Formats: sequence, structure tokens, C-alpha cells
Amino acid sequence: MLKNDLFLRALNGETVERPPVWMMRQAGRYLPDFMKLKEKYDFFTRCQTPELATEITVMPIDQVGVDAAILFSDILVVPQAMDIDVEMKAGVGPWLPKPTNSEERILEVQVPDVYERLNYVFEAIKLTKQELNDRVPLIGFAGSPWTIFCYCVQGQGSKNFDKAKAMCFSRPDLAHNLLQKITDTTIAYLKAKVEAGVNAVQVFDSWGGMLSPIDYQEFSWQYIQQIIDALKEDIPVIAFGKGCWFALEKMSTSGAAALGVDWTCSPQTARKLTNSSITLQGNFDPSRLLSPPKVITKMVHQMIDEFGKDKYVANLGHGILPNIPVPHAQAFVDAVKSYEEKKIMF
Amino acid sequence: MLKNDLFLRALNGETVERPPVWMMRQAGRYLPDFMKLKEKYDFFTRCQTPELATEITVMPIDQVGVDAAILFSDILVVPQAMDIDVEMKAGVGPWLPKPTNSEERILEVQVPDVYERLNYVFEAIKLTKQELNDRVPLIGFAGSPWTIFCYCVQGQGSKNFDKAKAMCFSRPDLAHNLLQKITDTTIAYLKAKVEAGVNAVQVFDSWGGMLSPIDYQEFSWQYIQQIIDALKEDIPVIAFGKGCWFALEKMSTSGAAALGVDWTCSPQTARKLTNSSITLQGNFDPSRLLSPPKVITKMVHQMIDEFGKDKYVANLGHGILPNIPVPHAQAFVDAVKSYEEKKIMF
Repeated sequence: MLKNDLFLRALNGETVERPPVWMMRQAGRYLPDFMKLKEKYDFFTRCQTPELATEITVMPIDQVGVDAAILFSDILVVPQAMDIDVEMKAGVGPWLPKPTNSEERILEVQVPDVYERLNYVFEAIKLTKQELNDRVPLIGFAGSPWTIFCYCVQGQGSKNFDKAKAMCFSRPDLAHNLLQKITDTTIAYLKAKVEAGVNAVQVFDSWGGMLSPIDYQEFSWQYIQQIIDALKEDIPVIAFGKGCWFALEKMSTSGAAALGVDWTCSPQTARKLTNSSITLQGNFDPSRLLSPPKVITKMVHQMIDEFGKDKYVANLGHGILPNIPVPHAQAFVDAVKSYEEKKIMF
Repeated sequence: MLKNDLFLRALNGETVERPPVWMMRQAGRYLPDFMKLKEKYDFFTRCQTPELATEITVMPIDQVGVDAAILFSDILVVPQAMDIDVEMKAGVGPWLPKPTNSEERILEVQVPDVYERLNYVFEAIKLTKQELNDRVPLIGFAGSPWTIFCYCVQGQGSKNFDKAKAMCFSRPDLAHNLLQKITDTTIAYLKAKVEAGVNAVQVFDSWGGMLSPIDYQEFSWQYIQQIIDALKEDIPVIAFGKGCWFALEKMSTSGAAALGVDWTCSPQTARKLTNSSITLQGNFDPSRLLSPPKVITKMVHQMIDEFGKDKYVANLGHGILPNIPVPHAQAFVDAVKSYEEKKIMF
């Protein structure tokens, strides 16, 4: 039995005393203790060592008091498991020395045995569950097939992922071949995460907003829908598409338990687009955490007023930035926790 | 008298036989003749030499047959005129060796005499008008104050312009001080362009979509509104905000002659958000020009069907990419020109 199940109750659409709160990338570079581990161990060592991943995952529970943990890992462990090399290059970010950008390379990609290739993730989940000791739920995650595809074909981050889109528009057959293999791997991966003990999963579609509404359905959403269909009986699935406001209506009837929203879509618009039918998660502009704490508190209370306290998970609209002072992240979390009190005061 | 005034008639909301067509960045790197000049002259030399700017501006009129010319220049000539150094660095793009990122630097920025500092632009307009010889209208442009501010404070391009946003949220007083000075310079600059002979102006808000709807009004739109107010009696003003779908309703009552739309907002949604009250311009995904020409033709005809042929300017949803084959750009332009014929065939 979880001691704090606010997050799961919100995903389930239940009436809550206040919204739950967590922050995307909450186990990350804004935390001084994270930076100490970052100096000692490289990125994928931190992902692949269950003790380190657990320590990092639990940090924000102890240090800023969020209502859910999210396993420290990376969306690019999936292509690694598919024998597509991914490195983290200083000053560049993800770097794939051999992009999957030709017919030959795409056709040779295989769906791997995830238990064999990603066992370190499942071990980290088991260890984290022990460490959390039922204090809060644990979220597992994966990148959307489209977002993984973007990195595989482009070979690195990009402002417009022109090479990935060029593959879709000039050779849609090859694009769909690779997208389906990523999807199959992701479904097996998330199912194994559920077996290992996560309480919810989130699919991150960081680059869906690069596509037109029609292309989004063809190259991104249909694959996320496959993931939701495969998982929804087992566990709540959160779908987060950055810049994907145009697809929210369709997403709201997908069987997902909740939808992530970024800060360019106002709470009112997000509720309208989803016919107020589903739990929404978001959408504080991560840069807005650079405002003075008093401003943060006011803006968070306004955000909750606009989303409404039920069917709602307070979060940022994207990952927390490395340069956010911890007291500002704390102000964000505390503002959500004080929401009910504020209402009583008036 | 212009021989082809289709573009101006569409901006004026008149009934037209087919929509006019031009492409953002149409005088650019996808054209082999542009690349020859690029090898000989560096970026700002091309901007600052009226003969070169004219030659480049006219290229797409002769070579792909668009219905409007847009002066070859850059949005960053405005900060240069304000004594904020801007270089074009290979592999990086815009590079400001001394970003305007402190109280001291922001307060020392002055609104310049645009006639003195940007005379080369007005000379290029006069020469281009001669060269065009009334074949098509000439568009002048400027970056939005917010977009210029982003580069000035950040010092270079960025995925999230975190430093520029940090300035807004931690020192809004300084942000507004700089934004107002950029706005004042931009208004003087565009008024001088009108005097030199342009037939319409477009304001490019490339980075407005990084802001929440509320922050957009405060840090971007109010300054674009000042520009529209100052220019609208003299000339049609087009406002293009990439990723700014959330502001379209407000923009539609601003006095702008037309609004640019990017490809993440469907034609139907854009019409709905603007109450079908204003000319819209866009919104073909630039990457979609990598599709086979037959697919381009079909998609362009569908786009016009969805926007409707009146109160509409066919364009891309952002600048054309350097790797687009000329025959694909040609297919885009030809598809718009053949639109009427297609309707007659059925």
C-alpha cells in the first residue's frame, strides 16, 4: 500500500484534496547532489548502474518532496538495445556515430530481447521500489517511437530534424519499417518495466510538434496508440507530446490515463480541446522557475485554478532546466501543496 | 502600375482568380545561383551591397516565378544598427560577441538614426524596384522585437533561449527597456523602407512560440502591435509568429493585413481561430518539399482547398530549406498557379 497515492488517484480521475506534483527531469542537473555523481560517473554509467540510478531517482523525493518518483534513465537506451550506438557527447548531447539513415541500415535493425539488453533498467526499478518503501509511486518512461526515430535517423539533436523528416517524406516505407520496430521494442520494454514494479508509465514525444497535424497522425500518434493499447489494461499510461496541442482531442479518446500539456497551450484551451474528459498534466514554463519564488507561488496557484484541482497533475511543461536554483523548484512544489490552504484562507 | 498585383489584392481581401504564392527565404541557399554568390561574398557583404541584394532578391522571380519579391536582407541588421555586433559564424549561425545580457549593456543601447545606419537597405530597395520594373510587388521585413531581443540577450541561436527568457522573468524592467528600444528602431526602419518603395512589410516572430500565451502578450505581441499601429495606415502589414497559434485570435483584430501560419496549425483551425476575418498566409511544411513533386502538387491543392482561394496567400510555414531541389520548389509554385485549372477540370 502506497503511503502517498495522490498521483495515482489523480490519474484515475478521483476527487483529491489537492493535485499531486512532480517535475519532468526532477532527478537532474539542478540538484547539487546529482552534480556530484555527474562528476564521478558518465551519463550511461549512471543509467546502467542500478545503485546509481536508484540514488538519483530518490533524490527529489527526499530533497524537494514531490509526490511521485520517475526512474532516472534515458529514452535513448531503447535504440542502444537495438544495436544502434548512442553516445553522450559533451556540448553536443546525444550523438549516434552511425545514424540509421539508409535502406541498408534500417532493414538490418532487429527487435531485441529487452530482458537481455535492458536488464539493468529492471534491476534499477526493483532497487528503487525497495528504497522508496511505498512512500510514493514510481513512474517508468519511454520516448515515443517518432522521437526515437528522429535521433536514429538524424544522428543527433536538431532544430528541425530535417534528415528524419526527409526520410519520412521521401521513403515513407522505410520510415514505417523502423518506426514499427522501435514500437515493438518499446512495448516489450514498458511491459517489462511494469513487471519490475513501476506504478505508471509516461511516453515522451519530445519532437511530435515538428510535424503537421496530418503527418503527426501518420508518423507519430499511430505508434503511441499501439503502445497505449498494449499497456492500458496493465497500468495508467501518460502521453506527453511537446507542441502537440493540435492532437489533444484525438489523444483524449485514446485510452491514455492522462495527457501532458506544454506551456504554449493554456489550461482552458487544453480542457476545451479534451472536452474536460481526461486527467491533464503540466504545464508551467520551465524558464518561469527563474522568476522570484513569490511570483512562482502566485503563478502556480493561478495554474491550478485554471486547470481545476481534480483530473490534474501539477508539473512543468517540459523538463526542469539545469540552472534553476533549488529553492525555486521547492517553491513550485510547495505552491502546489499549499493550494488547498490558500482556498481556505479566502 | 504593377503587372501582377495578385499578392496585394489578396492582402486587401479581394476576390482573386487564384491565390498568390511566394516562399519565405525564397532568395536563398536552395538556388544554385545564390550559392555562387555565397562562395564569393560573405553574408553581411551580400546584405550591405545593394547590387548583390538586388540580384539575389530578383532571382526567384525569374527562376521559379513567385508572385512577390522579398528583399534579401537579415533581421539582425537592426541590432547591428543599434551598435550590437552580430557576426555570421560558420556552423553556428548568428553570433554576438558581446551579448546584451546585463543592466549596464542594456541601458547603454541607443535608438539609432536608421537613415544613417541602414541606408544600404533603402538603396537596395530602390535598385530592386528598378530591376523588378513593376513585375511583382516587393516585400520588406523585420524581425519582431522579441525575436531580436532573443538573439541580443542569448548571444546566438538556441533551442529554448533560456538566457533571454531568464532576463524577462528575473528582470522584466530591463527586458522591457530593451524591447522598447528595439521596437522604436524597427518602426523607424520599416517606415524608411516604405518611403524607399516596398509594397508590404512582414514582421517575423520566429521565437514567439517559446513563450506561454500570457508571456507572449507581455514580451512579444504588445511590441508587434505597436509596429502595426505605426505602419498600418501606410502599408499592409503581415504578422508571422512561428508557433504562435494561441495568439491568432487576438492577432486577427490587430489591424494587420494578414497573418502567417505555420504547418502545426491546420488551415481549418487557423480559419476558426481568426473567425475567417483576415487574410492568412502559409503553411506548407518546408520539409514536405522533399516529397516527390506529384505528392507536393496534390498536397498544395489540398492546402488551398482547406484555406479557401480568397483571403489567402500560399506560402511555406517557415523558410525554405537549403537542401530542397529547385524542381520541388518549382512544383510548389506551379501547383498554386494550376489551382484554378484543376477546379475547372472536375
